[in-house]
Amino acid sequence: MEPRPAAPGPCPGDSRGAEEAAAASSLHPAEAQPRRRAPAVAAVLPAGGSGERMGVPTPKQFCPILERPLISYTLQALERVCWIKDIVVAVTGENMKAMKCIIQKYQHQRISLVEAGVTRHRSIFNGLKALAEDQPDSKLSKPEVVIIHDAVRPFVEEDVLLKVVTAAKEHGAAGAIRPLVSTVISPSADGCLDHSLERARHRASEMPQAFLFDVIYEAYQQCSDYDLEFGTECLQLALKYGHINAKLVEGSPDLWKVTYKRDLYAAESIIKERISQHICIVMDTKEDENHVGHHLEEILKNELNHVKVTSGALCPTSRDLEQIILEQCYNYVCVNVMSSDFEETRKLLNMLEESNLSILYPIVVISVYFLDYKSVPFDEKMESLIQIREYAKEVKKRNILLSGLLIYFPQDEQKLQASLRQGVTIIATLIKERNSGLVGQLLVA
Amino acid sequence: MEPRPAAPGPCPGDSRGAEEAAAASSLHPAEAQPRRRAPAVAAVLPAGGSGERMGVPTPKQFCPILERPLISYTLQALERVCWIKDIVVAVTGENMKAMKCIIQKYQHQRISLVEAGVTRHRSIFNGLKALAEDQPDSKLSKPEVVIIHDAVRPFVEEDVLLKVVTAAKEHGAAGAIRPLVSTVISPSADGCLDHSLERARHRASEMPQAFLFDVIYEAYQQCSDYDLEFGTECLQLALKYGHINAKLVEGSPDLWKVTYKRDLYAAESIIKERISQHICIVMDTKEDENHVGHHLEEILKNELNHVKVTSGALCPTSRDLEQIILEQCYNYVCVNVMSSDFEETRKLLNMLEESNLSILYPIVVISVYFLDYKSVPFDEKMESLIQIREYAKEVKKRNILLSGLLIYFPQDEQKLQASLRQGVTIIATLIKERNSGLVGQLLVA
Repeated sequence: MEPRPAAPGPCPGDSRGAEEAAAASSLHPAEAQPRRRAPAVAAVLPAGGSGERMGVPTPKQFCPILERPLISYTLQALERVCWIKDIVVAVTGENMKAMKCIIQKYQHQRISLVEAGVTRHRSIFNGLKALAEDQPDSKLSKPEVVIIHDAVRPFVEEDVLLKVVTAAKEHGAAGAIRPLVSTVISPSADGCLDHSLERARHRASEMPQAFLFDVIYEAYQQCSDYDLEFGTECLQLALKYGHINAKLVEGSPDLWKVTYKRDLYAAESIIKERISQHICIVMDTKEDENHVGHHLEEILKNELNHVKVTSGALCPTSRDLEQIILEQCYNYVCVNVMSSDFEETRKLLNMLEESNLSILYPIVVISVYFLDYKSVPFDEKMESLIQIREYAKEVKKRNILLSGLLIYFPQDEQKLQASLRQGVTIIATLIKERNSGLVGQLLVA
Repeated sequence: MEPRPAAPGPCPGDSRGAEEAAAASSLHPAEAQPRRRAPAVAAVLPAGGSGERMGVPTPKQFCPILERPLISYTLQALERVCWIKDIVVAVTGENMKAMKCIIQKYQHQRISLVEAGVTRHRSIFNGLKALAEDQPDSKLSKPEVVIIHDAVRPFVEEDVLLKVVTAAKEHGAAGAIRPLVSTVISPSADGCLDHSLERARHRASEMPQAFLFDVIYEAYQQCSDYDLEFGTECLQLALKYGHINAKLVEGSPDLWKVTYKRDLYAAESIIKERISQHICIVMDTKEDENHVGHHLEEILKNELNHVKVTSGALCPTSRDLEQIILEQCYNYVCVNVMSSDFEETRKLLNMLEESNLSILYPIVVISVYFLDYKSVPFDEKMESLIQIREYAKEVKKRNILLSGLLIYFPQDEQKLQASLRQGVTIIATLIKERNSGLVGQLLVA
């Protein structure tokens, strides 16, 4: 899976999304213009749920994954789509303060908060009202198309958002669907099977959904209290009050909704996997080509062949390391020259701290030493160990997970290969687990 | 969550299950007997699926979790229910050999293998035929009630199995259900919303299901080819051919089906969590009460208050450690007296190897040393390090994950508390992650 760009706000170079949405907007000849125009799109995110199904006190949209609340990942997924102009989040009064902290801490952009209602529909309605009202002091303006998504579906991709928006432009309403995993049955009053539905003829209605703003807003204005209390399905409102048969769009498995505790486990594993796909080996350019660090790089590439391994130099003239940081690489293996000195690692840590990259995900840094501990007095190594523990404590506050790796460096070529492979196993483990419990350790290969 | 008993075959002391099932069997006055009789129950497990939804080449029931195939966990869950007499698994010819290896390696009991059909229904039918036939050479006999379960639902608990069996005895058929997570909709021919179903009036049909054997077997014998090719729902067959409205039993979230890759992640996390709920501190009984090892135990109890922490002594006269191993504790913290000698750890490792406990789950063993590395020449510690790496390599072959933990032992009471807490953090991490990549390491607190 591709790691999604982490930096909120500014958009990825290619504005494919915007263009295709523009193309979509010109599907209606009446609207065709010499200069294509992307539809004004906003998103509404109901986040007032209590998450009773999760079996945990915290509402699930606020449950932490790698110490960051789930909803922040969902906001990040919407923010990186530059043609979504505004994102309106409906949260309960008691969570309003927490939500503001989240927006500030993770530097979320284009977010407006509204008070959630007592039900999902009422929360969505409040979000729509905020977009409809043209108050002078409001920075929100009425969009042409509105996306409705769940705060607990963090893995939504731009392509499905684009598909539902494009379909909503044409049909008035659109929603993502998935095949049913289980057969759906209808119970009788006495708790027995009345009949089972044919799986092939039914689908699960998922999120995101998109609507022409006027269609869904008018539908909500006509809603009965019963709808607002007991309904959940926006497509149904568009059908009932707007007489619009929503276009159904096949979604990917990524759209799944974090519902149970097990889903939090799954989400954490998926996120860890996504940010572990790129490892950067940082080496002093003064090193000669035959330096063992290059052997390590080779073995990393061979053993972790599903992972992208690049190398970056620390010398100020070369810009490649800065580029790699900009590309949001969250894993660094820093090869130190033979000494207990931390010069290279310190330089790297400074660059990472300045980049603010670790705001969204923990960065793993592994500081590697090659030496023959039989020949070197061990006190030195204990010095290194004590040093690295201090550094680790320090940078952990900035969400950087630093550990040391001592690679035994025998003259025997075969033994060297063995300890290099062992080193790669340790590196892979530290990156995969991304667990702060082992920071500051000096591991030995 | 309670860790489920791991040892297959022999039953847990309380045969609650059998008794309640017996009670159930006497629900029909006609069958009431002076001596209550449990119904003869067998289980059929269709495991012929290809797992295309998983997006991985291996069929999902054979995907490894902690290096053990998923289906082995499901068999374990059924085996520990002693009133299930036979478990018939339907696997494709190409997987027959692999399945036999799994049964042997993990010492599964009461399993019979039959050839899977090309569809789920045909596989189940083959399983039922094997139970129906009374061949002299067959060790299978026709059960009164048959459970049908999925190979990819490893977390099924005894209580729900008992509920469906009891209900099947009374109604002829029964199945577990769950609330719908998403709204179910019906698409029109042109891929638009035709109508959406009222969530409250529908349920997801899950597994396990149970049937009076004759009811489901006769239903399968009457099945059309269309049923066998395109049907999936056994309850529907009982209704269509047996005119039996199955009793619906509310199931727990545990019943979920491993369908996508993310479900494998979730399953692994759940299993890791379950086997991390009990930690045993092993200490030499010769230690006095004030030994720092007891402080460590105290802090473990305080910091990991959701975990059961017990202590076991190695002296041959005391049986408590053997008892703890019998209770299937998968986590051991072995406190060594001040030396680089491995005596205690070696004793523990021998006991664990003899117990065969690690057949089903990897055991974590953390060998703890207390010492002031400022006062002791470091070579000794390197000796320990090299020793522990050798032991670790050795016992890893037996699925035991051994690491060392050096706890800095300053005179200053406050500093000591700090390093003990740090030690507990490392212990918790090693137990939680249960990753073989760090075995043989000597970590420092």
